[in-house]
Amino acid sequence: MRDIKGIPAKVKNDLEGIETALRENLNPHLDLIRETAGHILFSGGKRLRPLLTVLSARLCGYTGNDDKNFSVIFEYLHAASLLHDDIVDGAAFRRGKPVAHSIWGSTTAVLVGDFLLARSLSLAVKTQSMKVIAVIAEITEQMSRGELHQLVKKGDADLSEAEYMEIIRCKTAVLISAACRVGALIAGVGEQEELALSEYGLNMGIAFQMADDLLDYTADSKTLGKEVGADLKEGKLTLPVIYSLKAADPETRVRMEDIIKNKNFSVQSFETLLNMLKSHGGIEYTEQKAAAHISSAKTALSIFNNSKTKEIMGHIADYALKRKM
Amino acid sequence: MRDIKGIPAKVKNDLEGIETALRENLNPHLDLIRETAGHILFSGGKRLRPLLTVLSARLCGYTGNDDKNFSVIFEYLHAASLLHDDIVDGAAFRRGKPVAHSIWGSTTAVLVGDFLLARSLSLAVKTQSMKVIAVIAEITEQMSRGELHQLVKKGDADLSEAEYMEIIRCKTAVLISAACRVGALIAGVGEQEELALSEYGLNMGIAFQMADDLLDYTADSKTLGKEVGADLKEGKLTLPVIYSLKAADPETRVRMEDIIKNKNFSVQSFETLLNMLKSHGGIEYTEQKAAAHISSAKTALSIFNNSKTKEIMGHIADYALKRKM
Repeated sequence: MRDIKGIPAKVKNDLEGIETALRENLNPHLDLIRETAGHILFSGGKRLRPLLTVLSARLCGYTGNDDKNFSVIFEYLHAASLLHDDIVDGAAFRRGKPVAHSIWGSTTAVLVGDFLLARSLSLAVKTQSMKVIAVIAEITEQMSRGELHQLVKKGDADLSEAEYMEIIRCKTAVLISAACRVGALIAGVGEQEELALSEYGLNMGIAFQMADDLLDYTADSKTLGKEVGADLKEGKLTLPVIYSLKAADPETRVRMEDIIKNKNFSVQSFETLLNMLKSHGGIEYTEQKAAAHISSAKTALSIFNNSKTKEIMGHIADYALKRKM
Repeated sequence: MRDIKGIPAKVKNDLEGIETALRENLNPHLDLIRETAGHILFSGGKRLRPLLTVLSARLCGYTGNDDKNFSVIFEYLHAASLLHDDIVDGAAFRRGKPVAHSIWGSTTAVLVGDFLLARSLSLAVKTQSMKVIAVIAEITEQMSRGELHQLVKKGDADLSEAEYMEIIRCKTAVLISAACRVGALIAGVGEQEELALSEYGLNMGIAFQMADDLLDYTADSKTLGKEVGADLKEGKLTLPVIYSLKAADPETRVRMEDIIKNKNFSVQSFETLLNMLKSHGGIEYTEQKAAAHISSAKTALSIFNNSKTKEIMGHIADYALKRKM
């Protein structure tokens, strides 16, 4: 594999343009919005989603100047969703920093999340494209459905792989898919390119969430920026666990469920579970599934001629698999 | 004044059509959404906002069948805003029933609010009118700004009347104004009618919020469906207090501020404050202001020919002043 750490250097100008657009389009009016939205927006996010919009538009031959402004729709939507999800999850840290609601309170986090969602809509309207607006409305609905679906299934040891796939598609993948698709729409190309970029983004988003879910079992807490085992403590069953529960003999399954259901599990219990996930193939299965989706993501780009942009988008797919962006 | 209690009978068919559209467009998928959204949507709201859309469209000569479906955009937006605001306010009751977050938890209330907002967007997209969508995006942003502005100013005894006006315009009036304006847009009439209906709704919305703010000082808790003095306990300074604080001599002002700042004020303290609001004219001033806005609302309709619909809209304006809908 090529040096994927080199990606930021290859898109330096794009990232700078996105940073400027993120600040200029925020239009906060109130200090409280500036501070709270700034805390979540300017805290070391990798700008994966807006970058994908800009690259997708370029891959479709776009040479105009609106791509960066419209790309921030997806960073605002992402930030809005993080603000609300952190409340839902009762999370304490994100990217190694205290979450917004622990600093400003849940009420501010709810309202600033609403504000960022509204800003992303206002920007979508500025595209004057009914297709773009329809995409934004659709994914906003899917994202809230996905989060609610996850909430309903909290702690449910019978969660199926199909339900897990539906949850991660809605809560993570549709946003990344839309970021790519809107790049095609901004460029004004045909449905074939629009569909290909949707597929690229959707598959990458699925792999990305799987890789993120794996981190909860494989990272150390410093790399992760939050506590290891946090998903499980919140009652979130992810693919490594779902697969292993199904693969285990009844006796082992009972032991696994005992650990999962006790949310204050000890470090020792967590390590016991981790060994079970490894021995029953849950970690490996998830890694393979994620890799297959990355492969599908890259295949979806095959309709485009080779170019530097296409190469970078291939590297981003590889990178999404390796670490959380 | 005419018998304003007769309004529901005059719009019975419209209200039934709205009720059906509210259920059919919810499209919940998950039981949790059905229950939580249903709790807020079907708990005795008077459907003021969708009714205004339907009547405004009819006033502009609309005879199609899409008005009721599109009118529910405003009830969903209203419900979404109530779900989030009740969390922000820490409210326990609404319309005499426990608030959603006290039954299902704040996390569900946040996500179902997001879902209802998203549904209203999806419906706005269905109008295929860029103008309608732009209105929805704009008011969504203003509503979140209004709530944040109110939050920032919590407990601030120096809140000016101008700031109060800006807060109630954003948090309440722009939604009612948009409900009327979109009626004109659905009917496809000119800018003059669109502007007139915007003005009608904006002025009624302002009066409506003032009347609601007055209830906190004049109603008994049974009529109100929540605790009397609740606004003050949340640190919300409204026009009766703002005006009286300004009108009072320095000594009285200090006594009033003492009561306001102690959020666990006694019934006796509240009555003392109430007498001060009366003697310094805060109650009367607010009543007069609200009446003036209702008058402006009705004047805005003068460009339309007299009709049964126009008459009903005039009665609704009177009704908005008399009690919370």
